[in-house]
Amino acid sequence: MAIKAGIVGGTGYTGVELLRLLAHHPEVEIAAITSREAAGRPVAAMFPSLRGRLDLAFAAPERAPLSSCDVVFFATPNGVAMNEARALIEAGVRVVDLSADFRLRDVTEWERWYRMKHAAPDLVAQAVYGLPELNRERIRTARLVANPGCYPTAVQLGFLPLVESGAVDLAHLVADAKSGTSGAGRKMELHLMHSEATENFTAYGVPGHRHWPEIRQGLAQAAGGEVGLVFVPHLAPMIRGIHATLYARLTRELDLQPLYERRYAQEPFVDVLAAGSHPETRSVRGANVCRIAVHRPPQASGRADTVVVLAVIDNLVKGASGQAVQNMNLMFGLPETAGLEQAALVP
Amino acid sequence: MAIKAGIVGGTGYTGVELLRLLAHHPEVEIAAITSREAAGRPVAAMFPSLRGRLDLAFAAPERAPLSSCDVVFFATPNGVAMNEARALIEAGVRVVDLSADFRLRDVTEWERWYRMKHAAPDLVAQAVYGLPELNRERIRTARLVANPGCYPTAVQLGFLPLVESGAVDLAHLVADAKSGTSGAGRKMELHLMHSEATENFTAYGVPGHRHWPEIRQGLAQAAGGEVGLVFVPHLAPMIRGIHATLYARLTRELDLQPLYERRYAQEPFVDVLAAGSHPETRSVRGANVCRIAVHRPPQASGRADTVVVLAVIDNLVKGASGQAVQNMNLMFGLPETAGLEQAALVP
Amino acid sequence: MAIKAGIVGGTGYTGVELLRLLAHHPEVEIAAITSREAAGRPVAAMFPSLRGRLDLAFAAPERAPLSSCDVVFFATPNGVAMNEARALIEAGVRVVDLSADFRLRDVTEWERWYRMKHAAPDLVAQAVYGLPELNRERIRTARLVANPGCYPTAVQLGFLPLVESGAVDLAHLVADAKSGTSGAGRKMELHLMHSEATENFTAYGVPGHRHWPEIRQGLAQAAGGEVGLVFVPHLAPMIRGIHATLYARLTRELDLQPLYERRYAQEPFVDVLAAGSHPETRSVRGANVCRIAVHRPPQASGRADTVVVLAVIDNLVKGASGQAVQNMNLMFGLPETAGLEQAALVP
Amino acid sequence: MAIKAGIVGGTGYTGVELLRLLAHHPEVEIAAITSREAAGRPVAAMFPSLRGRLDLAFAAPERAPLSSCDVVFFATPNGVAMNEARALIEAGVRVVDLSADFRLRDVTEWERWYRMKHAAPDLVAQAVYGLPELNRERIRTARLVANPGCYPTAVQLGFLPLVESGAVDLAHLVADAKSGTSGAGRKMELHLMHSEATENFTAYGVPGHRHWPEIRQGLAQAAGGEVGLVFVPHLAPMIRGIHATLYARLTRELDLQPLYERRYAQEPFVDVLAAGSHPETRSVRGANVCRIAVHRPPQASGRADTVVVLAVIDNLVKGASGQAVQNMNLMFGLPETAGLEQAALVP
Repeated sequence: MAIKAGIVGGTGYTGVELLRLLAHHPEVEIAAITSREAAGRPVAAMFPSLRGRLDLAFAAPERAPLSSCDVVFFATPNGVAMNEARALIEAGVRVVDLSADFRLRDVTEWERWYRMKHAAPDLVAQAVYGLPELNRERIRTARLVANPGCYPTAVQLGFLPLVESGAVDLAHLVADAKSGTSGAGRKMELHLMHSEATENFTAYGVPGHRHWPEIRQGLAQAAGGEVGLVFVPHLAPMIRGIHATLYARLTRELDLQPLYERRYAQEPFVDVLAAGSHPETRSVRGANVCRIAVHRPPQASGRADTVVVLAVIDNLVKGASGQAVQNMNLMFGLPETAGLEQAALVP
Repeated sequence: MAIKAGIVGGTGYTGVELLRLLAHHPEVEIAAITSREAAGRPVAAMFPSLRGRLDLAFAAPERAPLSSCDVVFFATPNGVAMNEARALIEAGVRVVDLSADFRLRDVTEWERWYRMKHAAPDLVAQAVYGLPELNRERIRTARLVANPGCYPTAVQLGFLPLVESGAVDLAHLVADAKSGTSGAGRKMELHLMHSEATENFTAYGVPGHRHWPEIRQGLAQAAGGEVGLVFVPHLAPMIRGIHATLYARLTRELDLQPLYERRYAQEPFVDVLAAGSHPETRSVRGANVCRIAVHRPPQASGRADTVVVLAVIDNLVKGASGQAVQNMNLMFGLPETAGLEQAALVP
Repeated sequence: MAIKAGIVGGTGYTGVELLRLLAHHPEVEIAAITSREAAGRPVAAMFPSLRGRLDLAFAAPERAPLSSCDVVFFATPNGVAMNEARALIEAGVRVVDLSADFRLRDVTEWERWYRMKHAAPDLVAQAVYGLPELNRERIRTARLVANPGCYPTAVQLGFLPLVESGAVDLAHLVADAKSGTSGAGRKMELHLMHSEATENFTAYGVPGHRHWPEIRQGLAQAAGGEVGLVFVPHLAPMIRGIHATLYARLTRELDLQPLYERRYAQEPFVDVLAAGSHPETRSVRGANVCRIAVHRPPQASGRADTVVVLAVIDNLVKGASGQAVQNMNLMFGLPETAGLEQAALVP
Repeated sequence: MAIKAGIVGGTGYTGVELLRLLAHHPEVEIAAITSREAAGRPVAAMFPSLRGRLDLAFAAPERAPLSSCDVVFFATPNGVAMNEARALIEAGVRVVDLSADFRLRDVTEWERWYRMKHAAPDLVAQAVYGLPELNRERIRTARLVANPGCYPTAVQLGFLPLVESGAVDLAHLVADAKSGTSGAGRKMELHLMHSEATENFTAYGVPGHRHWPEIRQGLAQAAGGEVGLVFVPHLAPMIRGIHATLYARLTRELDLQPLYERRYAQEPFVDVLAAGSHPETRSVRGANVCRIAVHRPPQASGRADTVVVLAVIDNLVKGASGQAVQNMNLMFGLPETAGLEQAALVP
């Protein structure tokens, strides 16, 4: 019998991407999708790409049969899920939150970065951070999964083997990350308009970005202690894709390629490329994969003590909705790859 | 038992798109893919987007088990299939040719436009032009299908209801068509370089384009007589997508919206939008669909005798490889939509 | 002594483009630029591209020395200039309005398309439509110039020789026009966001667009009588550029290439390409030029009675701010090309 | 009297950009431009953007009056200037080489990176590396200037104040650089085709890039000793622009903003932004400027010892042809900014 899935707030990019993935998931039936503003409107009227693929209308949140769903995804702005998840969880619904509400275990730090009071600190305590490559077993039994941010997914997957190895200077990690414009969501801001964003490249948020504490939290878990990280996000003139270029200084010798290959050998959605490779963001466009290459470039005569890791994901798939489906698969004992085997769309 | 499919010349864009579609087709096993230059190389080494999705290497044409396939697709430059199809057909293999070799029934005209001598005029005579919306029944039993060109697919589907209606001036049709750069194939030409083609828009081939006789042939079949057509293709700065804007003058009154809706009511891959709509190319990105809207704009005080049809396809899917799979489905008695139900990738 | 220029509403794309052009104009001093919201803010803080090139701050409209300027440009939304131009004109200031307020001579039609009551019908009567290739002599002495819209500039320049020739069917002109996203201005609309507009192509406004009556008015002036026109605008995924593809049916024989070359032989900013050419939008990027090619493509066996004209401009230069400077040059007896001789930026 | 300039090899992007700049230079007359393949062809036939702006044809190299020029620019592939510069220098012509032939003082290292034997090691010894911000006085009297590479210009200008300060760990500099596709030149390579490069982001050359030794050489000159550098270039889906994101670890306290402001206070083409800024590549599109911002982001609780510098240039202007003109201005005692005052083209 199919798993009944509900989506709260389905009018953004992570929402439509969830719809695209769930519409083809062999074990899922989409039972409800809510939107206050779009209530009553067929989903395919807002997203003509779904015409003929999805026969469903947005429902007002209070009228949607969410509590009779098996799983509910929150594809909402920050601050919504923390108010609405409790009732669903108490009704026995499993929840996957694609927003940031339950990502940081330190509620004080969360409140500083997200500039609001947290409505459910106790739920934060039970939420599991949904990076399967880090927390797979705990996700299986979680009632509430905090789906990771897009940058944090790429940066953590890229750094994990190094950080776990204990062979790099953990106080001085550097993550230089580039994202397409869909990472900012389906919202109107001047710098995201086509004439502003295309044929342009810029860093942003260098003094501070919300994904910085999230990445540090995950790496600290892997390292067993605090890590120092400089995180510089950039906006690249493309729709989808994150390219994380990561730098770490070796503190002892290490054979990098086998380290990465072994770490991810059993992972269905992490692909370690051959030594010397350069992964392209388009190679994961629309696909739930993180592709990684690890390098040790020349630095000066006779010295090469800096590791360079290149990691790419589709920010809307492995960086959001695909990972959410992966988490759902784990929570319901389905094959982890169910509904997630599409190849990337190239060219 | 799965249908064994072979692909000749799989290193271009229609080839990799066929692989993406066939890799997920529930009834097909990809038995062989050939390339002389890439022989021995894993397909996923050339197309990293297929890593983990396809475990197959290119084979030299003479060593590939093509004659034991059920169906062979030619994704080759023009001039190859006309030399190689015969042996396969005689071995009982069904052939779908994505090149132009069998598209024009008039061999003399073909030789003029394609500037070579045709090697198999007799096969031209048996080939069926693979536009299912025009020739569905004949495709079912065809041994050799000439898969339509990308522009011809969009333009014919857009014009068919009008042309069949007999209510427009058939001597003066105008097709103003815009294509993304992937329509030119995975080949190196200066004007197709990124720095040349992006942020640019231009018409080309106005004095004559090979798709012009192909479109006229199809429309003439539908009209039952010669049609006059001005065809102006343009290169748009995007990867995928064709937008055909079509103009025809009414010779008598006609109710346009129902004409289109009725004509395509049973078609699984033609989607007639509500009156007043403007289809977007991205709404079919990666999907085997043609979306169409029909308009009758103001022209002068009290007169509006020109019909405007807007038709969009993904040139690599409904305009090439998806349509080839649709033809294969028809030829083998499979559900016409098998393997072709993916929603478009948006954004 | 330099001409003192003021700009009202300089925070949009036509405003910053005026600044770029006027900052290098040998005979102009920018005396004031107004913006209510940005009052007090240095122009270069909003447009860092002008850092070091322009040392000026936005002024509140009521505090700017506009009435002591020699010329004032309105780069405002529609509806502003019609209220503010009168006082300036009465103070002896020459006005160039880049908005649509004075473009349509028929005030009733203007009010229907622009959905507001016109505040200054008498000024409409004295305004000169600022297409120098049509109205050069009247522009020289005008006190108020209505600077043409972007589409109307390209379409009129492309059609003028044909329409003036009297040798085409004036009831059935077709203009299929494609514009980059900057044509919509520096404003936030969902469909203009980068993730929505890039890698996409769509027609819009087919049932009716404000530039349709403007084009018809200009062509009627040239034809000496009403013309019928189907006008279909499209949004292309690039920042700058308009490509107009124009169709007209010949009613008698005509030698097209010399017709166009003669018509524009003395025009400094219209460039007729050699027969058989296809102008590219990038060839005019940043430049005040319209490049045109004229074709007569095959249509059916032995018939070719449809003319195809290709015309490209940069919508922000010859389609807006460059043409405004050209008009100013004419109004002040300067060389028409002063400040407008930059070559296009390619690649 | 105008300076007579010749250009050898003017068919690439740096060539056409030189033409665009020199065509408007108040003190320069373009006397000759050579191309073996294009000999006899009008420049404007190859680059229609120059129609009406430049009335000159390509000349065969042996027939061009190069030795009677005052200055000759080599916009040639590597390996040409080293063979042809000597005769011109001996004839009294000043030479600016935009290729890499004279950039590395260590001929052995040059031969290793450029994989050919150097034809003129003695000229290497007299060549001056043409980064005015580093070598202004020596450029004034140089007979042969080696114009810097595009990445080296951005990275050196970004690092210079830090490196000169002696307050950073010089063994572990990191330069994460992103370039548009025009940086690769007007040549055909598969990965540079539009359908391959757009909507994609990738690092390349991590194991080794020719600009790495060039950057290290310049920084070593500034530091007075060897520096260690990890250099990771990336290809961004845009035509023009380099964004260098630079990382260095402080070894003692330093007030960064005044350091940068003071260092570049007198530089006409280096623009230090206010603290907290993020320069955009489009803000220098078409302009001979490097814009820089310096940051010191959080790293871990209570520690922030890594400096982040953001530096942007237009790779074809300050990164190539504009800098070449700047060097020419210095060599001929002209105002350094002559012909280089255009504002960037935005949007």
